[in-house]
Amino acid sequence: MANVLRNSAKFGFSGVLSQLSIHSRHGRECVSPCFSLQQRNSSTSPKEVDLDNSTGVAVLRMQSPPVNSLSLDFLTEFCINLEKLEMDKSCRGLIITSTLSKVFSAGLDIMEMYGKSPERCGEFWKAVQEMWLKLYGSNMATIAAINGSSPAGGCLMSIGCDYRIMANNPRYSIGLNETQLGIVAPFWFKDTLVNTVGNRAAELSLELGLLYSAPDALKIGLVDQLVPEDQVLSTAQVTMSKWLAVPDHARQITKSMMRKQTIDKLLSNREADITNFVSFITKESIQRSLRMYLEMLKSRKA
Amino acid sequence: MANVLRNSAKFGFSGVLSQLSIHSRHGRECVSPCFSLQQRNSSTSPKEVDLDNSTGVAVLRMQSPPVNSLSLDFLTEFCINLEKLEMDKSCRGLIITSTLSKVFSAGLDIMEMYGKSPERCGEFWKAVQEMWLKLYGSNMATIAAINGSSPAGGCLMSIGCDYRIMANNPRYSIGLNETQLGIVAPFWFKDTLVNTVGNRAAELSLELGLLYSAPDALKIGLVDQLVPEDQVLSTAQVTMSKWLAVPDHARQITKSMMRKQTIDKLLSNREADITNFVSFITKESIQRSLRMYLEMLKSRKA
Amino acid sequence: MANVLRNSAKFGFSGVLSQLSIHSRHGRECVSPCFSLQQRNSSTSPKEVDLDNSTGVAVLRMQSPPVNSLSLDFLTEFCINLEKLEMDKSCRGLIITSTLSKVFSAGLDIMEMYGKSPERCGEFWKAVQEMWLKLYGSNMATIAAINGSSPAGGCLMSIGCDYRIMANNPRYSIGLNETQLGIVAPFWFKDTLVNTVGNRAAELSLELGLLYSAPDALKIGLVDQLVPEDQVLSTAQVTMSKWLAVPDHARQITKSMMRKQTIDKLLSNREADITNFVSFITKESIQRSLRMYLEMLKSRKA
Repeated sequence: MANVLRNSAKFGFSGVLSQLSIHSRHGRECVSPCFSLQQRNSSTSPKEVDLDNSTGVAVLRMQSPPVNSLSLDFLTEFCINLEKLEMDKSCRGLIITSTLSKVFSAGLDIMEMYGKSPERCGEFWKAVQEMWLKLYGSNMATIAAINGSSPAGGCLMSIGCDYRIMANNPRYSIGLNETQLGIVAPFWFKDTLVNTVGNRAAELSLELGLLYSAPDALKIGLVDQLVPEDQVLSTAQVTMSKWLAVPDHARQITKSMMRKQTIDKLLSNREADITNFVSFITKESIQRSLRMYLEMLKSRKA
Repeated sequence: MANVLRNSAKFGFSGVLSQLSIHSRHGRECVSPCFSLQQRNSSTSPKEVDLDNSTGVAVLRMQSPPVNSLSLDFLTEFCINLEKLEMDKSCRGLIITSTLSKVFSAGLDIMEMYGKSPERCGEFWKAVQEMWLKLYGSNMATIAAINGSSPAGGCLMSIGCDYRIMANNPRYSIGLNETQLGIVAPFWFKDTLVNTVGNRAAELSLELGLLYSAPDALKIGLVDQLVPEDQVLSTAQVTMSKWLAVPDHARQITKSMMRKQTIDKLLSNREADITNFVSFITKESIQRSLRMYLEMLKSRKA
Repeated sequence: MANVLRNSAKFGFSGVLSQLSIHSRHGRECVSPCFSLQQRNSSTSPKEVDLDNSTGVAVLRMQSPPVNSLSLDFLTEFCINLEKLEMDKSCRGLIITSTLSKVFSAGLDIMEMYGKSPERCGEFWKAVQEMWLKLYGSNMATIAAINGSSPAGGCLMSIGCDYRIMANNPRYSIGLNETQLGIVAPFWFKDTLVNTVGNRAAELSLELGLLYSAPDALKIGLVDQLVPEDQVLSTAQVTMSKWLAVPDHARQITKSMMRKQTIDKLLSNREADITNFVSFITKESIQRSLRMYLEMLKSRKA
C-alpha cells in the first residue's frame, strides 16, 4: 500500500514513518504504527529545557532516542515542564524542537499499549490528553520548530502550538496518519486539524491517513513556514520575537476566544474518550496486531 | 444576465446549463432551470452498474439521455442500486460517471415539479434527500468521475462523494447555481458545499449562483483533480485503489466522524424540509414560471 | 515592535495605522490606537449618499476628515442612511467608499471612549453593534470599495459587506489589528473574520493583530479583488451589476442562510457585550493609556 502512495505527488510518504509502518488489507482492524517503539537504555532525561531570562523564551529540546516516542514517562515529564513554564511569569514564549536527527517525534509509544492493564492504558491516554490540553490552551506563545518527521502524535503536538516552522526537506513528513494503520484519530485530533487546515483538507487527510512532505504540508497550511534545516531553530527565535511584541494579555484572551470551544469539548468528554481508547486498545485483535508489529520491529533491528 | 457573467473569468458560465437557463430580473421569484427536462422515450434502464469482484469497485454509469435529469424514477433506481452495493460485502468502492456526451447530470427533473400534486412533489423531494443521505453517508469509498457539466443537483451528487475528478474542459461547468434561477439551495446543499470549499467560497458561490468552469472549480476546491477527458474514468480507478489501500473500518469511522453532524441535521429536519419544498414549488407563481420555462424548452427543440 | 514586523513580507504593516499606533510591552494592558482621533471642525455632513434610480445602486461616500473615524455621530448617521436605503424598494445595491485620500476608515473614534460616562460609552458601543448588524444582515447587495487603509473598525465595516474591492496599493493596509494595541476584538468581529478567511488565517491574524497590505489581504481572502486605485469605484459599479443580475429574493434568503447564525449570536448577547466593553474601557488603566495616546497625537500635530 505504501508503495502505491509513496510515488504519488499527492499522497506523498517519506521519512521515518514509512519504515515503521505495518498495514492491513481488506478492512480488518490493524494497529497503529504511528505508535513507535522507545529504546529503554537511555538514562538521560528525555527532555532539556532552557529558559532564556533575557528574552523570556524557553526552548524545550526533545531528546529521547531513537525517535522521541511519546511514552507515559515522556508525556508526564513534558507536562510537568509545561506547567512549570506556564507558572513562571518570566517565561512568555515556548519553542519545541528535537535534538535527534531526522525526527521531531514519531508519535505515541507502542509499548505503552501492549500487554498493559486497562488501568495503565487509561493512565497513558490521560497523559496524551493532558499534553494536548496544556499545549493547545497554553498562555505562552508556542512555536513548533519541526526539524524532522512528525507523524501522528508528533503532528498533534505540532498543531497544538501557535505556529509551525518546518525544515524544508521533502523527506520529512507530517500528518495524522492513524487511518492508514487501521486506527482512528479521536475527535479532538480531528478538531485541531480542522481548525488548522479547514474541513475539506482535514477530511481528505484523515480518511486517507495522509502524511505530507514538508512542501505539501506548507501548501495545505499544516505548517506555516519552511526554512533550511539548519535555520529552523533560529527562525523560530526570530518569529517568537514578533509574537512577543504583541501584548500578552490581549494575545492570550484572543487565543482563548479562538480555542476555548475545542478545548471544552474534550474537557467535557474526557472520561468517555479514555474509556473508548482503553476498550479499543485492549481488544484481543488489536493486541495480536501489536505483538506482530513489535516482532517485525525487532526482526528489523536484528 | 448570463452574458454579463459569461465573459468574466471570475463568474464563468459555460456548458449545458447556460442553454437551459431562464432568468428573472428585478427580484421577482422565478424558477429553476437547474431543473432539466427528461426525455421519456427511452426504455433502457437509466443506469448501468458494473461491480468488478476482483477489485471490489463498482462503476455506476448514468445513462438517461439527454442530460441525466434526476427524475423520481431515476433517483429511486439510483438509491436501490446504492443500497444493494452498500449491502454487498464484496463492494468497497463506488465510482459514479455518465455515459452521455458533455454532461454528468443536469440536476433535478422539472417534470417532477410541474402540475404535480403536493403528495407527489413531497415524494420526489424525499427521493432527492435520500440520494444525498445515502451518498454522503456511504460506507463505500465514493468517487465522482465528472466527465461533463454538473450543475445544481448534479453538483450535489458530486460533492456527496469522497473525491471528485473532472474532465479538464473549460466548457464543462459545475456549481450550485440555484440562486441564479430564483430559487434557493436548501440548508443541506449549503452545508455540504461549506464542508467542501469553506464558508466564504460557499457564500459567494451560493449568493451569486455561480457555475464554475472545470479549472475554476479546481481553484476553489470544488473538485479535487482535473484530467484529460478520456482519462477521467481510468484515473478514478487508479485513485480508488489508493482509497481502498486504507483499512475500511478506520476509513469508515473517520468518514462518519467528519460527516455525521451534517447528516444528522437533515435527518432531524427532514419533514420540515419536505414541507418547505412542497409549499414553495406548488405556489401558483412558481408553477406559472415552470410552464413558461417548459414552453421555452419545447420551442427550442422545435 | 512595528519595525520588527514592518519589514517582514508575512507581517506587513503599512499606511495610516502605523502612524497612529501606540504599543505596550511585556503584556500590560494598553489601548486601542485602532481608535482614531476625529477632527471636530468640520460642519459638513460626514457622509454623502447618492442613489441612482436607474440602476438601483446607492453609493455612500464617507467624508469625515481626516480619517473617517467612527464616532457616535458618524455611526448614528451611517445607520440612519442604511435604514433609509433598506426601506427604499428602488434601492437594491449599496457601495461604500471614502472621499478621503489614502484612507477608507481608520476605525473607532478614540474621543468617544476617553473621559466619557459609562452610559455614553455604552451608547457608543451599541452604535458600533448596530452598524455591523445592519450591514452584515442587509437585504441589499453590499460592496466595499476600499480606496485606502482600513484598520480595525474600518476592516469590520469592509467584511460586513458582500464583496470587497481594494485599491492595488501595497501602502494601504487592512486588518483587525486590535491585539497589537493591547485590546481584544469581540467575538462578533472574530466570527465575521472567520467566516471570511477561515479559522486558521483568522487565528493568526487576530493573535498577532496583523494588518495586511492590499496584496497580502487578497492572498488570504480578506479582500476579493484588487484594482488600480482610480478604478475602485467603477469596478464596484460593474461588479454590482452582476450581483443585481441575481434575483433579489433568492439572493436575500441565501445570504440570510449563510449569516443568520452569526448575527443571532450577537443579538442574543448584545447587552452582555456592551457591559463587557464599558467595563473594559472605563478602567482607570485604560483611561490613563487613552490620555497618553491623545497627548502623543496632539504633540504630533504640533
